[in-house]
Amino acid sequence: MEKNILGNNIIAQIGILVHDIEKTAQVYADFFGIDKPEISMTDPLDKAGTEYKGEATEARAKLAFFDMGSLQLELIEPDNHPSTWREHLDKHGEGPHHIAFFVEGMQEKVALLESNSMPLMQKAEYTGGRYAYMDTFKDLKVMIELLENDK
Amino acid sequence: MEKNILGNNIIAQIGILVHDIEKTAQVYADFFGIDKPEISMTDPLDKAGTEYKGEATEARAKLAFFDMGSLQLELIEPDNHPSTWREHLDKHGEGPHHIAFFVEGMQEKVALLESNSMPLMQKAEYTGGRYAYMDTFKDLKVMIELLENDK
Repeated sequence: MEKNILGNNIIAQIGILVHDIEKTAQVYADFFGIDKPEISMTDPLDKAGTEYKGEATEARAKLAFFDMGSLQLELIEPDNHPSTWREHLDKHGEGPHHIAFFVEGMQEKVALLESNSMPLMQKAEYTGGRYAYMDTFKDLKVMIELLENDK
Repeated sequence: MEKNILGNNIIAQIGILVHDIEKTAQVYADFFGIDKPEISMTDPLDKAGTEYKGEATEARAKLAFFDMGSLQLELIEPDNHPSTWREHLDKHGEGPHHIAFFVEGMQEKVALLESNSMPLMQKAEYTGGRYAYMDTFKDLKVMIELLENDK
């Protein structure tokens, strides 16, 4: 394996899949004594260009972000269209889905991981940036999300 | 549920269960371009006083800690004695097991979570402190570990 593939080892997010984001976000807010964050939704296909396993997908998810130290805990409630979120939730139930890292040069990073046998699972654009979920499970025992924000 | 139960919302650790800690620690070191940390082992029962589901257990685990931002990623390879690590690994396979938070007043925190329907799963002492795994899965969709270091 190539060394220091991401160029970054600072965990930016932990993503947790849930069935009912309104309910679980309220529990988190109460448990940790913080305000319940606004729940957002990922953009539709025509704006996000979401691809799952190489094919366009209508999949969207509701998201809630909690600041918990230097990183965010992200709750994710996916819809029923094909996505890594829906597949993982159906297969494993609620719980941790990924840890995320910021990178520079998304295309090159995705290509580098793929050439090291860590395939791209899903990618999309969001306002101000883009993400890519990489199948790092065999090597790292957890899925990695790459995040790139425009400067 | 009582509010702000832990008195702290800073994630201190993410714990990931693995079958072969030597191998996976080397992969992490290579992937993130950092030195492979020394692999330690939890203390034996007579020193740690390990209890799982209310009963003493001989269970021990090999541990490796990686600094990844303000938190640690902890790899855990349990032995075959009864523990939350072994049970979770056998049931779910390799992957995330818990997120950890530092607390003050371990006994009171454990009692407070238990009175809010989040039972103690496992506890033990380590040099300079103690931990408790709490079954927060129903509410938070992930297990919480409480850590308390002596001043």
